[in-house]
This record gives sequence, structure tokens and C-alpha cells, in this order.
Amino acid sequence: MNQEALKKIKTIIPLERIFTELAELYSYSYDASFGEYLPEIVIQPKNASEISELVKLANEYLIPIYPRGAGTSLSGGPLPVKGGMVLDMTQFNEKLVIDRENLLAIVSPGVITGDLHKKAEEVGLFYPPDPSSSHVATIGGNISENSSGPKGLKYGTTKEYVIGLEVVTPLGDIIRTGGKTVKNVTGYDITRLIVGSEGTLGIVTEVIVRLIPKPQARKTLLAHFAHLLDSGHAITSILSAGILPSAIELMDNACIRAVESFSPSGLPVDADSIIIVEVDGHPAAIDEEIKQCAKMCRNSGATYVKVAETESERLKIWSARKMVSPAITQMGPTKISEDATVPRSKIPAMMERLNRIRDKYKLNLVVFGHAGDGNLHPNIITDKRNIEEMKKVELAVSEIFEAAIELGGTLSGEHGIGTLKSPYMEMELGKSGLYMMKKIKEAWDPNNILNPGKIFPEKDQKRVVFV
Amino acid sequence: MNQEALKKIKTIIPLERIFTELAELYSYSYDASFGEYLPEIVIQPKNASEISELVKLANEYLIPIYPRGAGTSLSGGPLPVKGGMVLDMTQFNEKLVIDRENLLAIVSPGVITGDLHKKAEEVGLFYPPDPSSSHVATIGGNISENSSGPKGLKYGTTKEYVIGLEVVTPLGDIIRTGGKTVKNVTGYDITRLIVGSEGTLGIVTEVIVRLIPKPQARKTLLAHFAHLLDSGHAITSILSAGILPSAIELMDNACIRAVESFSPSGLPVDADSIIIVEVDGHPAAIDEEIKQCAKMCRNSGATYVKVAETESERLKIWSARKMVSPAITQMGPTKISEDATVPRSKIPAMMERLNRIRDKYKLNLVVFGHAGDGNLHPNIITDKRNIEEMKKVELAVSEIFEAAIELGGTLSGEHGIGTLKSPYMEMELGKSGLYMMKKIKEAWDPNNILNPGKIFPEKDQKRVVFV
Repeated sequence: MNQEALKKIKTIIPLERIFTELAELYSYSYDASFGEYLPEIVIQPKNASEISELVKLANEYLIPIYPRGAGTSLSGGPLPVKGGMVLDMTQFNEKLVIDRENLLAIVSPGVITGDLHKKAEEVGLFYPPDPSSSHVATIGGNISENSSGPKGLKYGTTKEYVIGLEVVTPLGDIIRTGGKTVKNVTGYDITRLIVGSEGTLGIVTEVIVRLIPKPQARKTLLAHFAHLLDSGHAITSILSAGILPSAIELMDNACIRAVESFSPSGLPVDADSIIIVEVDGHPAAIDEEIKQCAKMCRNSGATYVKVAETESERLKIWSARKMVSPAITQMGPTKISEDATVPRSKIPAMMERLNRIRDKYKLNLVVFGHAGDGNLHPNIITDKRNIEEMKKVELAVSEIFEAAIELGGTLSGEHGIGTLKSPYMEMELGKSGLYMMKKIKEAWDPNNILNPGKIFPEKDQKRVVFV
Repeated sequence: MNQEALKKIKTIIPLERIFTELAELYSYSYDASFGEYLPEIVIQPKNASEISELVKLANEYLIPIYPRGAGTSLSGGPLPVKGGMVLDMTQFNEKLVIDRENLLAIVSPGVITGDLHKKAEEVGLFYPPDPSSSHVATIGGNISENSSGPKGLKYGTTKEYVIGLEVVTPLGDIIRTGGKTVKNVTGYDITRLIVGSEGTLGIVTEVIVRLIPKPQARKTLLAHFAHLLDSGHAITSILSAGILPSAIELMDNACIRAVESFSPSGLPVDADSIIIVEVDGHPAAIDEEIKQCAKMCRNSGATYVKVAETESERLKIWSARKMVSPAITQMGPTKISEDATVPRSKIPAMMERLNRIRDKYKLNLVVFGHAGDGNLHPNIITDKRNIEEMKKVELAVSEIFEAAIELGGTLSGEHGIGTLKSPYMEMELGKSGLYMMKKIKEAWDPNNILNPGKIFPEKDQKRVVFV
């Protein structure tokens, strides 16, 4: 760390929010993906003007800046791959205001998404995006990655709710984008450009999200299928009948077996797939809708269909899905969680491709995901110390990406590109598509200060995961 | 027109789709705003590769390119302010495919938005954005301006439905952005950057929009209010009760009088305001909801509330709203239609500001709009040959913008910036905010080929409307 820069930092930020000891730095060297990179300094900013000054200083001394929420990224988003300065945003969490009349919330970036959920629901409002880490992840992190969870089909993603931002630009200026109105066409949509840009175009210092009235009720069903194709058919029938479920979750046979062996609860270990369908809205409407969904599951060949009649039955259905993560975590020390996403109608084809990849490389691959919006989560359970197996994993992951793109899908539905998928960007976007993205980064951040080493493939970037 | 360039154009495009006669050029010199600027040449491209070649040629010879849909822009979006080449996209309209299984449509840019509505509804699906020009406007034009209409409150804007694009870049490359999945976080969201960029960042050559199931039924009510504040209170009560209407339209007293004098139908000419509320969804749900809405209007002081019991009653309620445009058109030769948008709770304050502006400048100002999303349409009826009055109009418009921004709103909710509002951009965005937008334009379009003279204020740009 440049000592002159460090001295200046100490004039901007109180000492108790500056960390330079190895033990402290170490806790910021990883996230929920794989790499480990030590930063040179960690700072906990608490407002936009502190960040503005830090960014200006970083430009002066060419210090990379890595903003970081709760560190739950699955793609390496916050990893300080070039050292430099980590901004731990979790202490920048003062504001969480619900504006009931305008159906919106104004939130500091370090606020935990789950707290936004709670506060909104207390006054009958609803913030739909719900990544599975929402009880610990920050709204700033969710915005950087556009992470969304199971409700994308009916409610859209994080991006559909963010209508205004305060942002520190890569040059250190504080700008406001969008505002408090759903409609705003005053120039380019910088708000949506920042959402999902993984902290490479600006540091979010305040967020305005729109809220909607909380659905009055919900109904849930579970269906077992002997053939995966039948569950695909059931999903299509439901959507074609004009029903838009708030969630359609799918688990494949390997996933069912993993959950059942972790926590036996009578799941059908011979079933090819199970699906969970949830509808929400007006009680009269969803009563009728869930009956229709059940009928269409049966008509599509479901071997078993159960509509939850009580809240405890509903929770029991969801407990199978919630067990997926703990179940696969204990299957091996390393879990590689992908989020390749395909058009909904291509889910059966994608599942077939995944089966072939599993057989070819003899890997422990389980699949679950948000079938309603085509967002699958193939998880490979392995051990990163097993160099031979990791080589196979790398080839398998590459084939998963290829399959998704060939089927008209995308590398990443909600985890982001980070360090892990950047080498595959050109495969999806083509040379010109990637070039136009990079042009924006270069125009906004001429010194490449903000989260360098992410999204765009770099020649000198160390591969850490796949040895 | 450079003769060498013209010769090359004739090798790219068949002669019958090239226009250079004055009479032909004249029909492309205006839109639904005010300016008149003659292009040097008009071309009707029919596919992306023709456009790609034209853009490359335009870069070689530095010819400005002005893409144009049906020319219904209210902000000067397609006007060829620097001459050059107009691309009339209306013949590029071959593809309109509904993909029922994936709930999406794939559409050529020249397709009329109303045709997309019809095709989707034929199979029980729904494309919510519905600008009032949708029976003639093209989807490409809608995307360029992010024009949206009355359903923004419940369904969001055009941007919330566009998930993929094929675009010819300002350098003439053909790229694809987004795709067929709602979830896609592979790099920056170029799709949403292009939507609303008014043709300055790329020419859209194919569009993928998501569709939703068509609501099964709808219910409509009309309410009269002696005091505008009461109607504001009614709207807030409805939204706070957890009801999200598909439309809440408002007309002020001047607007009511204008409509009633144009086509007498018993509207309350003494009422301060009338509102129309429409809910859609499951029949059981909306039956209950519309009753609640009626009750809340009454509780808020409505002097009259009518729930439509039949389709013809429903159409009668809407006919008052549909008469607004013809009514004000016959009040004077020049209509200046603004779309300043404020947070919903600020509508009463904005209406008060508009009243003061009307009184101060003694102008014929009527106000109607989409009260649910804060998107008001103050219309000034005048005569552009009356130079004295036009000077007052200019001052009044400027005060309208100031009021919207002071109340936390925006210059433009859905008409776009075009030529008319560019001088006011810095007032809303600040120096740095505008600078960051311009950086993108400069990085993408170094020769300033695509729709130059729009969005960004220019020193040498002639003011045409306001003399």
C-alpha cells in the first residue's frame, strides 16, 4: 500500500473503520465462490461523500477498488483479484424508509434484503426479488448482481423494481439516476445499466425500489413425475391456461435422492422429477387456479399431486426445496453452483444435455431450479483438492455453458459473470457485442479503478478455481 | 447529397425504396411535434444487413442517419435536424411470431404495436404497453422512446417487456442483446440501454418481448370530485388497500369542459376533477375490488360514482377519456403536449402548480393523465403563428419542467427528450449525470452518426417551436 495514499485515507475515514492487519484482510479475501485474493486495505464507508473521496484518491494513486456487500456472491463478484482496497458496505445501512403513498422504499446499500422484505410487509407491501441468500445478503449486492430468486416468472427480477439510484461514478462524482417515478425517459437508462454491472461502473450509495401490494393469499402444490418430460408438459399447460404462478420449482432425481438421504421425509427417490407450484393473489382466484394446476399435473402424468390445505402442509412442501442446499453441501467439500438459463420450453432438452454431461464425466451433478423462468441450477459436488476431478469439472462446466447458449439461453441468469464466467462471454455475445460493453467500461472508468478483473476476460487473470 | 455516397447507396438498396424528390422528402420532415427539417434522402430498409451497410457507409461519408417509425413522436425523436438520411422503418415489418410456450413474441421493428396486441390476444396472451398511438405507431418507435401509456402503474413500461434485441450499432455491426429469458445477467444490460435511447445508440432490427396471460376480466368506474385533493385522496386509499388498478386516469376541470363542449355527454362541468379506475384479473377478485374502489371514492368525497355494469357502460366511461385528444385539437391550431411526471403523492401539488402557471400566463392549459403512475399530460393549446403568445408558452413550459423536478419528478415520463427538452437535461441530471450519459454516446458513436441533435443540448441547434 502506497504510504502517502494510506495517510490520505486516514484523513477521510476514521481509524476504527480502516483495516490493514493480515487477519482482518483475510476475512475479505473470499466470497461464496472459490478464489482467494488478499486486499491491501479494507474500509467500511458510511456515506456517499466518503466513497466519493476514496474513489478520487484511488484514481490519483491507481488503487483498484472492490465494493463488497455480505460476500454471498457465487461468481466471485467482490473478490479483490488485483489487491487494492475493499469497501465493506455492510456498515452503510442507516436508511430503510418505506414510502407507502408512493409505493416505494428508499434504502441504503448495506441494508439486508430480508429486512426490506419485513419492513415492506409490515405495512401490507411487497418487494418480490428474493434470492436464497436474502436473509444475509445486502440490497447493494443484489443490485450489483441483479440476483433475483424464484419469483422471476411472475414478478420479474431485481431490475424491474429498482427505479432510482444514487451512485458514485468511477471518477468519484456523486450522481442520481432515475427517481421516484415508474415512468422516466429523461435520457439513457443509467439505473438499469448500473443494476447487474457487478460494481464495475459505479458504487451504489442509495436505492429507490418500487413496491407492490402484498398478495392476499397463496396456495402451493407438490407433484411427482416418473418422466421429466411430463413435468415440462405440466408447466407448459399451466402457463398456457393463463395462470402465472409466483413460483415453479423443479428438482431432478439426483437432487431428490440427495435431499432424501440428508433428511428422510418420504420424497419419491424413484421419481424423475418433482415440481412445486405456488400461486398468489386474491383468495377466490388462487383457489380456482391451484385446482386447475393440480388437474393439469394429473393430466400430464403426475404420479402424485398434493395441494397444501394448511400453512404447515405448505411449509412441509417447501422444506424439501429448502433442504437442497444443506443436503448437497454435505455431499462434498466443494460445490460448483451454476445458473445457466434457457427459454422455458427448452428445459427438457437442457435436462437431457445435463444428464449426458453427468454420464460423460462421471460427476456428482444434481439439478434444481426455477423452472418457470428457465433458470436452472446445475450443481457439481466435488473436492477442489482432487486435481484430476477438477479438470473434468472444468470441461463439464464449459459444456454446460455451451448447451445453454446452443439452446438459446444465457451463461448466467442471476449469479453474474464475476471472475468465473468471463472467459465465456464472447461465446454468448460475439466479438462486437462484447466490444460494445467494454467501450462503456472504458469510457466511464478510464483508469480501470472499479472492480477490475471482473466480467471482461483478461489475459493475465489467474484461474483459481479450476487448477 | 454526396454523389459517390448516393451511387453506393443504390448498390445496397433497390431504387424503389430510395426517395430523393422534394415532395417525397417533405413527408419525412415532420413528426407529431413541431419542427420541420428536410432530409437529403429517405430509404426504406427491409433487413438488418441493409441497415448495417448503410451505417458503415454513413460513417465513411459522415452522413447523419435518422431512423423513423410512424412519426408519431411528440418530442421530435425522428426529425432529421441535420439533414442526412432518414430510414423509414415501416416496411421492415415482416416478422410477428408469437411463441406461446415461452410467453414471448419476436417482432420486426416496423410492426404496428396494435398488431402485436391483436396477435397476442388471439392466443390468450397480453402485451401491456399501450401508448395512445398504438394503432399506428411501430414497436421500434415505442422501444426507442420507451412510450408506455396508461398501464404503467400495474404493468410497468415498455422496458419491462423487452428482453432481447437485434441491433445495428453506430459502427454498423449487427449485435444481439439479451435473449429469450427473463433472467439474463451476462454483462451489462445493453437491451435496456437501447430502449429509450431515442435511436442515438443503435438501430433496432428485431425485438423479443415477453408476454403475460391475458387478464380474464376487467371492471371500470367513473367518479366525480368537487375538489381535486379528494380525488388524490381516493387514489391513495385505493393503492393503500392493496389494490393495483390496471389504470387510474384523471381529467381536470379545464379538460372536462373541453370534452363536454366538443361532444356533450353529461360530464360534470363544475367538477374539479373526474377519475376513471379500471381493475383487471380474475372475475371474483375484481368484482370485490371495484366495489372497494367505489366505496373509497365515496368515502373520499366523490359527488358521483358509477361502476359500469355492462360492456357498453364501460365503453361510455372510457369515451370521455378518448375524446380528450380530439376535443383539445379543435380548440386551437397548435397543441403542446407535455409529460412531466411526479411521484404519485405529489399530483395534487403539481396540479396546483399547473393552475398557478395557467393563471400567470393566461394560457389555455388543460390537464389529464395517468394519475396512477404520476404521469400527467399538461396540454397547452395555442397558435404557433402568435409570436407573443408563444413566448409566454415557452416560459410556461419551462416552469412546468421546474415544478416537476422540484417535486421530485422528471422532465419526461414517456414522450422522450428529442429536440424539445434537451436544453433542460442538466436541470434534472446535473452536470456529472449528463456527462456520464454523453460519455456512452461518444464511446459508441464516435462520428455522431445516429440521430444527432437529440437528447443532448447542442449550441448550434436551432429552436424551431418556440420562436
